[in-house]
Amino acid sequence: MSVTFCYKIEVRFRDCDEFGHVNNAVYFTYLEETRHAYLRYLAGQGVSSNAADEKLPHGFVLVRTECDFLSEALPGDLLEIQLRVSKIGRSSFGYEYEIMNTSKSQLVARAKSVHVAYDRIKKRSKPIPEEFRAVLERAMQGLSETSIDVVSD
Amino acid sequence: MSVTFCYKIEVRFRDCDEFGHVNNAVYFTYLEETRHAYLRYLAGQGVSSNAADEKLPHGFVLVRTECDFLSEALPGDLLEIQLRVSKIGRSSFGYEYEIMNTSKSQLVARAKSVHVAYDRIKKRSKPIPEEFRAVLERAMQGLSETSIDVVSD
Amino acid sequence: MSVTFCYKIEVRFRDCDEFGHVNNAVYFTYLEETRHAYLRYLAGQGVSSNAADEKLPHGFVLVRTECDFLSEALPGDLLEIQLRVSKIGRSSFGYEYEIMNTSKSQLVARAKSVHVAYDRIKKRSKPIPEEFRAVLERAMQGLSETSIDVVSD
Amino acid sequence: MSVTFCYKIEVRFRDCDEFGHVNNAVYFTYLEETRHAYLRYLAGQGVSSNAADEKLPHGFVLVRTECDFLSEALPGDLLEIQLRVSKIGRSSFGYEYEIMNTSKSQLVARAKSVHVAYDRIKKRSKPIPEEFRAVLERAMQGLSETSIDVVSD
Repeated sequence: MSVTFCYKIEVRFRDCDEFGHVNNAVYFTYLEETRHAYLRYLAGQGVSSNAADEKLPHGFVLVRTECDFLSEALPGDLLEIQLRVSKIGRSSFGYEYEIMNTSKSQLVARAKSVHVAYDRIKKRSKPIPEEFRAVLERAMQGLSETSIDVVSD
Repeated sequence: MSVTFCYKIEVRFRDCDEFGHVNNAVYFTYLEETRHAYLRYLAGQGVSSNAADEKLPHGFVLVRTECDFLSEALPGDLLEIQLRVSKIGRSSFGYEYEIMNTSKSQLVARAKSVHVAYDRIKKRSKPIPEEFRAVLERAMQGLSETSIDVVSD
Repeated sequence: MSVTFCYKIEVRFRDCDEFGHVNNAVYFTYLEETRHAYLRYLAGQGVSSNAADEKLPHGFVLVRTECDFLSEALPGDLLEIQLRVSKIGRSSFGYEYEIMNTSKSQLVARAKSVHVAYDRIKKRSKPIPEEFRAVLERAMQGLSETSIDVVSD
Repeated sequence: MSVTFCYKIEVRFRDCDEFGHVNNAVYFTYLEETRHAYLRYLAGQGVSSNAADEKLPHGFVLVRTECDFLSEALPGDLLEIQLRVSKIGRSSFGYEYEIMNTSKSQLVARAKSVHVAYDRIKKRSKPIPEEFRAVLERAMQGLSETSIDVVSD
């Protein structure tokens, strides 16, 4: 399964807790920042506002997430989060993530998330919009944005 | 499986994101606060420092956590987190959680976490200390601190 | 200058940093939570939505804040934040705060904030709405909600 | 007063609140990250561990901070925080900061902080260590690390 999008984040002092390493809850923030950066990237590629622009998060809800913690990360460490599209259903899709500590060439965490297209008026799930489905399918087939490298937090 | 410990947390404005509801990463903070409150409670009950006092977190590492999000919570909502001991192994044990929105009598989230006893000197897992194992076993059998109700953040 | 509103917050583990005590930035979250709780309280007292209900923050912007740190606070400590209305201008007003560690009867911090009524359409300051001005003036004269005690985070 | 150190931070989605812009408390985290990056930079320049390495924060305590908020910042905006040494006393020194939104060439905030050298054993202030004092004095005279540009979060 090829990498769809890479995002680099430097660990902040405030991301860490009393143990001096990144707090577990913050890894879910790293996943979220990666998703948002991916959507900004897609918007920059002209994927329309019905699919994946800045407003897209309003159209999807996160219904599940999970993370396995493999090694610790410290303030100032540079992390690379690799996002993959892992499954596509009628109204839901899933991402998988690997978080690498590039300062130490070490795998820090593996994670997953599941997102559902949601009609906030009718208050129920809806099919994934076609244009965004096409983006996801190309990503899953490795035909698309592989090896994008956005350097920043 | 009976409830081992209950903890109440009021949702802060800062816990919420642009969508006006509690951000996904913050639920993992709520789980963590519940675990810490449980350990403080145990310490108050005389469970010794080798088992479950304030320093105990140093003796265990979180290796996995997951959460299913069922409904949203808003600033000022009062949440009740119910913690259960769900499994006990040689060197690891698991908690399960239900987060209720007591302001709306609504289930907000279901979650799990897995913790491993860890020797930081030898850098490898170790057996769960006997005194804490006994606490966990009594909790799992429903013989113990069921229905503790700590009212605070 | 009499106390206008009191709010209690229990220190979370996540509020703390590598030094094991509450991180400096988090004190500004405590101030903010106190302001929001005060507005919720006023809304409950019937102060109308044009003045101080849940939406009021949209009508004011924070333009300045400051804090002196006097002692540290630790996970599980119970803090009491005392808010006072300290000055009222045409379009701006100020709060002052004292943060007490009730677990140790110790003054933790002193702080101030300045807020400006803001017209988001015309993008400029506007006079403080009359109903809210009346609330502030009564608070400043000590004629009002003194010694409110809201127990929770 | 010349700039001592510059640090770039990209605004995270999680840094923002219900209003969609960076929450006031988070600006104090940006200041802190800039200070820590400066200390890491000094450590890399060979300023010894008694003065300004990773452990230096343990030797100083933050006693006061303040911030004026001038414009808002949004998710994905790139901020540049300019740090200046603004005063040096016997046991305390001060930094001043300007936060620029480089995405919009706009001044976002002005801030200050005061730090005191502290003996944690004797629990009282102590003189600023000589080596670090020399660093601060050179910085204040504009003889030193002006226009350092660290690109990252």
